[in-house]
Amino acid sequence: MTPDALAHYLHQTIPLARAMAVEVGEVSDGMVALRAPLPPNLNMHGTMFGGSIATLGLLACWSVLHLRLVDQDIAAQLVVHRSETEFLRPVAGIAEARAHLAPALWPDFATTLRRRGRARMALTSEMRSGDQLVARFSGQFVALAEI
Amino acid sequence: MTPDALAHYLHQTIPLARAMAVEVGEVSDGMVALRAPLPPNLNMHGTMFGGSIATLGLLACWSVLHLRLVDQDIAAQLVVHRSETEFLRPVAGIAEARAHLAPALWPDFATTLRRRGRARMALTSEMRSGDQLVARFSGQFVALAEI
Repeated sequence: MTPDALAHYLHQTIPLARAMAVEVGEVSDGMVALRAPLPPNLNMHGTMFGGSIATLGLLACWSVLHLRLVDQDIAAQLVVHRSETEFLRPVAGIAEARAHLAPALWPDFATTLRRRGRARMALTSEMRSGDQLVARFSGQFVALAEI
Repeated sequence: MTPDALAHYLHQTIPLARAMAVEVGEVSDGMVALRAPLPPNLNMHGTMFGGSIATLGLLACWSVLHLRLVDQDIAAQLVVHRSETEFLRPVAGIAEARAHLAPALWPDFATTLRRRGRARMALTSEMRSGDQLVARFSGQFVALAEI
């Protein structure tokens, strides 16, 4: 899937991603980078709202696993079961969330999903603004096979 | 602060709260209930997006502490340092997040903020849809006194 196709999919299916003006920076095998501009994601302090930062991290993790499922022709609903965000610094510009799919976790995940119709994966993303690490997101995601 | 005044403030200062069409259900001393309708908060499965659910929980917690600070004439910036959300069930309608300020925590928090210019408080909110508990949010918030 190209960056444009992923951006289009997120904007079409998740109104909040559109409201946040989420852009897809990069997509490669096992990596997704999403960006959010400041203006639609402001808080009352003139910096980026924590809800936007956490949501950007969640979307990056969701996307990297979704794209692998699509790439492997595995029809599954992917939902978040738990999420955690550490906010390290105020964000005064564009934020980029980068999520990687750990290669070691994929084989067990795919096997479990095929056998049991359900599998769980922990994913993390890091948010940067300029050259600064500004937040860390971690989430537990569950894939439910579609019959 | 009335429910309308809080809704107006959130919509004016946080574009994402406006995009989510967050409504203020109730405001009382030490309690805030916020609601979000489904349509602007959908995901690709036709249920509420996890990012919206977590953000609603965060806004409820932020608001209950902000309102107490305003009520006590304490000028402080209130930011989130850490957040965690457990998603328990899919949400297929309006979600309501209810946050309470634990009375036992307030005196130490207020004293620390006045003495050191900075204080931390853990807050939680529960999200319900209809009569079902659908998610739990917990966050660490930090208040920074404005001189």
